[in-house]
Amino acid sequence: MEAIDSLVKLLSRLPGIGGKSASRIAYHLISADEDYDRRLGQAIAEIKGRIHFCPRCGAYAEDDLCEFCSDTRRDQSLLCVVEQPQDAITIASSGIYGGLFHVLGGAIDPMNGTGPDQLTLSQLKRRVQEGLFKEVIIATNPTEEGDTTALYIRQMLKGMDVTVSRLAAGLPIGGDLEYADRLTLARSIRGRVSY
Amino acid sequence: MEAIDSLVKLLSRLPGIGGKSASRIAYHLISADEDYDRRLGQAIAEIKGRIHFCPRCGAYAEDDLCEFCSDTRRDQSLLCVVEQPQDAITIASSGIYGGLFHVLGGAIDPMNGTGPDQLTLSQLKRRVQEGLFKEVIIATNPTEEGDTTALYIRQMLKGMDVTVSRLAAGLPIGGDLEYADRLTLARSIRGRVSY
Repeated sequence: MEAIDSLVKLLSRLPGIGGKSASRIAYHLISADEDYDRRLGQAIAEIKGRIHFCPRCGAYAEDDLCEFCSDTRRDQSLLCVVEQPQDAITIASSGIYGGLFHVLGGAIDPMNGTGPDQLTLSQLKRRVQEGLFKEVIIATNPTEEGDTTALYIRQMLKGMDVTVSRLAAGLPIGGDLEYADRLTLARSIRGRVSY
Repeated sequence: MEAIDSLVKLLSRLPGIGGKSASRIAYHLISADEDYDRRLGQAIAEIKGRIHFCPRCGAYAEDDLCEFCSDTRRDQSLLCVVEQPQDAITIASSGIYGGLFHVLGGAIDPMNGTGPDQLTLSQLKRRVQEGLFKEVIIATNPTEEGDTTALYIRQMLKGMDVTVSRLAAGLPIGGDLEYADRLTLARSIRGRVSY
């Protein structure tokens, strides 16, 4: 059936959705409330039009500035540097960080053609040079690319009057040593803290 | 952010999609091709309008009759009785069944208020009484409700000039005895075949 088949095909291009899940979702949509289908369809079709990148920090924004930059109650002396806009949302929703963000738009990855110039590193430098931040927390991913980028940022900010830190890497809380991968284990040993 | 939050909320109502997957899909949609978002959104919003139930067999249909009832190359002497429209699609796509379908719209489940009258059982009886079918294959789910429904149909068709069969239940192919649940194992022992 063409309508179902093409819906399934479109759905299975979503991340984490295989053919079976796509069929299941399609059947669910057929038997779901018509108003729900209409609202979901509209939300999907319109999302790109409603969201842009914050001109100051690069996070997702609905208004001129993003919700972080426009929130004066956030600590204006703390800056957290992340790779992607969604990382800012994840960190903000942890509830433990109340400062501002800077979104790089990726990580340095020469193998895939992403050099420092493709990221918002010069904007980051300019923001830090304004001298309003006391601390820059580098929250790039604990991957090779994220580490390279963190190193690059540390070098770039050297000599500026700002504390530079990096998110701790190690064993996930609630995890089991037995199931930790080698790299995580190595990182948690190298980065062991006095106790 | 309201646009993202409401999209995530709508997405997480889909089957098999939790909060994390919903967020991941939402971020994917933000960075995806705009034309893809528009087409997916439209396909979702329109699916209910494009699909109805076949007046003859109850399967999903885009035209007057479903693709099964309108396909004269299918074996008109074989009828497969299923609970849901998607079951017909699943069985047809196995490639091993080339007959027609009858969709009950559920299974007898008195605890949840589904009696025989809520299903298309009288239509099934009428179709079989027309005398065109040589065999009726009952393909209700191998659950208590599916079994009850199968039993009901067997009684209802008793005395009519038609062979009644039921899908075999037992160990799934490629499965491991050790991981088989008790009920499946019991069913496969009770239903053992000479070898």
